[in-house]
Amino acid sequence: MCGGADSEPRISNRTAYQQCHEKQKDDEPHYASRAEMELAVEEIRKALGEDAVSIEDEILHSHGYSDWSTINIERLPVAVAFPKTTEEVAAIAKICHKRRVPMIPYSGGSSVEGHFSAPFGGVSVDFVNMNQILDIHSDDLNVVVQPSVPWMDLNEKIKDTGLFFPIDPGPSAQIGGMVGTNCSGTNAVKYGTMRDWVVNLTVVLSDGTILKTRRRPRKSSAGYNLNSLFVGSEGTLGFVTEATLKLAPIPEHTGIAVVTFPSVKAAATMAIEVIRRGIPISAVEILDEVLMSVINRMGATSRKWKEEPTLFFKFSGSDALVKDSIIQVQTISKKHHANGFQYESDPEKQKALWSARKEALWSMMALRETDGHVWSTDVAVPLSRVSELIDTSKKELVELGLFGSILGHIGDGNFHETILFEEKQRKEVEGCVHKMVSRAIEMEGTCTGEHGVGLGKKEFLREEVGEVPIQVMRAIKTSLDPLWLMNPGKIFDRRD
Amino acid sequence: MCGGADSEPRISNRTAYQQCHEKQKDDEPHYASRAEMELAVEEIRKALGEDAVSIEDEILHSHGYSDWSTINIERLPVAVAFPKTTEEVAAIAKICHKRRVPMIPYSGGSSVEGHFSAPFGGVSVDFVNMNQILDIHSDDLNVVVQPSVPWMDLNEKIKDTGLFFPIDPGPSAQIGGMVGTNCSGTNAVKYGTMRDWVVNLTVVLSDGTILKTRRRPRKSSAGYNLNSLFVGSEGTLGFVTEATLKLAPIPEHTGIAVVTFPSVKAAATMAIEVIRRGIPISAVEILDEVLMSVINRMGATSRKWKEEPTLFFKFSGSDALVKDSIIQVQTISKKHHANGFQYESDPEKQKALWSARKEALWSMMALRETDGHVWSTDVAVPLSRVSELIDTSKKELVELGLFGSILGHIGDGNFHETILFEEKQRKEVEGCVHKMVSRAIEMEGTCTGEHGVGLGKKEFLREEVGEVPIQVMRAIKTSLDPLWLMNPGKIFDRRD
Repeated sequence: MCGGADSEPRISNRTAYQQCHEKQKDDEPHYASRAEMELAVEEIRKALGEDAVSIEDEILHSHGYSDWSTINIERLPVAVAFPKTTEEVAAIAKICHKRRVPMIPYSGGSSVEGHFSAPFGGVSVDFVNMNQILDIHSDDLNVVVQPSVPWMDLNEKIKDTGLFFPIDPGPSAQIGGMVGTNCSGTNAVKYGTMRDWVVNLTVVLSDGTILKTRRRPRKSSAGYNLNSLFVGSEGTLGFVTEATLKLAPIPEHTGIAVVTFPSVKAAATMAIEVIRRGIPISAVEILDEVLMSVINRMGATSRKWKEEPTLFFKFSGSDALVKDSIIQVQTISKKHHANGFQYESDPEKQKALWSARKEALWSMMALRETDGHVWSTDVAVPLSRVSELIDTSKKELVELGLFGSILGHIGDGNFHETILFEEKQRKEVEGCVHKMVSRAIEMEGTCTGEHGVGLGKKEFLREEVGEVPIQVMRAIKTSLDPLWLMNPGKIFDRRD
Repeated sequence: MCGGADSEPRISNRTAYQQCHEKQKDDEPHYASRAEMELAVEEIRKALGEDAVSIEDEILHSHGYSDWSTINIERLPVAVAFPKTTEEVAAIAKICHKRRVPMIPYSGGSSVEGHFSAPFGGVSVDFVNMNQILDIHSDDLNVVVQPSVPWMDLNEKIKDTGLFFPIDPGPSAQIGGMVGTNCSGTNAVKYGTMRDWVVNLTVVLSDGTILKTRRRPRKSSAGYNLNSLFVGSEGTLGFVTEATLKLAPIPEHTGIAVVTFPSVKAAATMAIEVIRRGIPISAVEILDEVLMSVINRMGATSRKWKEEPTLFFKFSGSDALVKDSIIQVQTISKKHHANGFQYESDPEKQKALWSARKEALWSMMALRETDGHVWSTDVAVPLSRVSELIDTSKKELVELGLFGSILGHIGDGNFHETILFEEKQRKEVEGCVHKMVSRAIEMEGTCTGEHGVGLGKKEFLREEVGEVPIQVMRAIKTSLDPLWLMNPGKIFDRRD
């Protein structure tokens, strides 16, 4: 068990994922005792006000446990703090630093790898009160935001500028966590990932020092790229309290095409040819036949879909560009034995056509039994290997009698496997996921293309990069957070 | 003077830039003495062979001094080593680490900020023998290269794959240095900068440890982004000995347009509107009226150009896309009072039309008097401020009686000022550059958009980001290179 002193709040009825434990016990004496943590909480309350801290069971539970996560542990944070400003975050950090209390950033809470769990207790810092757009520099194509701005809200609020923020992970994601995991989504094949859209960050380090990485240039070669170091560091190096993000012009026209294929291989090969030929698409998503059938079964959309491997293409730009791209994609799809091709340019009809992609995960979730679990994981491999990996992974699911589907950002070689299972099948699921991740790594891929490592993929990260990069990451972590107070136990452990 | 023991090789007749000195003297005792450095060189010679090291004056000079640089110092490296493999680089590092000898990476040597100068002596490590393309993964759209591959050669050698590497700094730049400075060029407005194209790096750390940052996924959220930390670290964290780079499909069609304007402001405002509206250009460069007149005067191209602020646009993609973009750009240019618009789609004629852009810097250089100097610097600011900064900077040149021109990657808010001067004008030039950089910083910009900090812009970096980011960079540096052996004295000093 990944727990601490007996007086800690705990979740019962949950088994913890095996990898999380023995090593972390070694770190226990290093951190404050339960009693000392409570003193820190008292100090934070005094500094920030009564309402700024909660120790309610339900709040602690929602900040240490997630139904979405592949991993949950028994321990919970001892308190949740709700700062309103960067200075208040710095005040929390100073108090926790003085008393050696772990600090865990929390924004949208949509992590699937236990990013906000509290293996050493400590204080969860929830940015819910820091959810403002601070500045819109539309002539510079950037915007200054606080960490709890949801990306979808941001786009709604700035749409009159003709600009948008193109990184599109799950709908509940917020900027802070998106920075933490270097997230992406369907638009990544055109627009890249989170790190490509960060102009500067304001970060509170573990001792309360406030750091602003840069000013607002669109590009810079001045000094180490601290933006890209904090992006993807999963809160282990500091709290992001403000971010300047680049924006892109909203495309004039868009189009959606849905193309079905006799096999995953045909679909994947076709998608890769589109990328290889440089046809300007803004998304290409693959849904396997299982997922298409789930969407039909759950009636999540207004139409009936072919239950075959399907590619969902998005196009955007000028009218001429969209039309031209569509024609090229249709021509290539025929070469790869597509057996269905539907295209829409009308905005309302586009929504209907994209609806299967949009409802895919929700349809899977809706299928879950009352006591059932979901395991949602992601890997990414070089493009030439992606269809082989999807095929093998699907076969393994079947062989183990597991029910799972595949959804992929195939233009990036990145896909998700979502498995529904009962508690008694947990071992099989873990084994199946491990095999898929190991195979991705053998194919020169990565254990996670966009979800991050968190608590759940630490051993996979080691398998992927080996010892030296982890030692280097540890050295960097230690240099910025010598007491290992920031989100400890995530990405890698303090000791082997 | 930024020099060491008297027995060091020195360049005479060169004044050193003031900022480089007193602080560095403090670091002297920390490093090996001249005699100890020579012992290290002897050891390297034994380990790598007679030919692997040179101490010839001319070789030392070319590895410690550059005509292109805004800054040169008197001291030179004590030797230049020429490793052939990553393992040989590691052997050099181990020897130098043991004896506390500074190590300075060297590839294309086209730095303008003293990146390969040797303020503490030490060994320059020239990658000239590591200039191979090791693997072309055309189906994955990536390529594995050694650090001394010139980007232009790379593109020539892989052109049959239909792919290219889109980062285009000066023609003599090589991959190692391009990684070091996070360089970019005319294509950045479409393709981004060096850091966006690095899939993984093999790096030799200061103690000889060999690190491979990742495998070959197109995207990843697994652990800290070590790629982006090493990209732009100017050789201060380790030697890059191998890089996997993303490639892009060669566009089917291209087009070039040249548009003249009555003022820099009109040109800049027009360019920004093109960006703001998301018209897919692949480059937009500004040349001021001075530069256009220099090109005419030097007869570097086969035509006569209007001597007015001029925008050079590149378009690329499908025929339809290129045609469509051109029409949109022409329409916008009229709105901004363009007084000339020329477009070419024929490849040979495109070359002629782009020739002014291509020959711009060479024409400036050719104007230089025998004993004359050139100061080439760059800054980047938010888009809305760029025309104001160019205008003010041009006025200041005139007021000081200096001769300089402006060339900018205006879509990134990034431009270069190139000043020709005599030795007696050095103080004025320094003052003029300082003013421009300070103004860029006040406008929330950066002291360098693509050249890097090197030895020349350390004080500007401090002015730009302040103390905390530099302390953070220092902490990271110390964590990976505790003895400060890797390219010391660049980006920031060990002590204030």
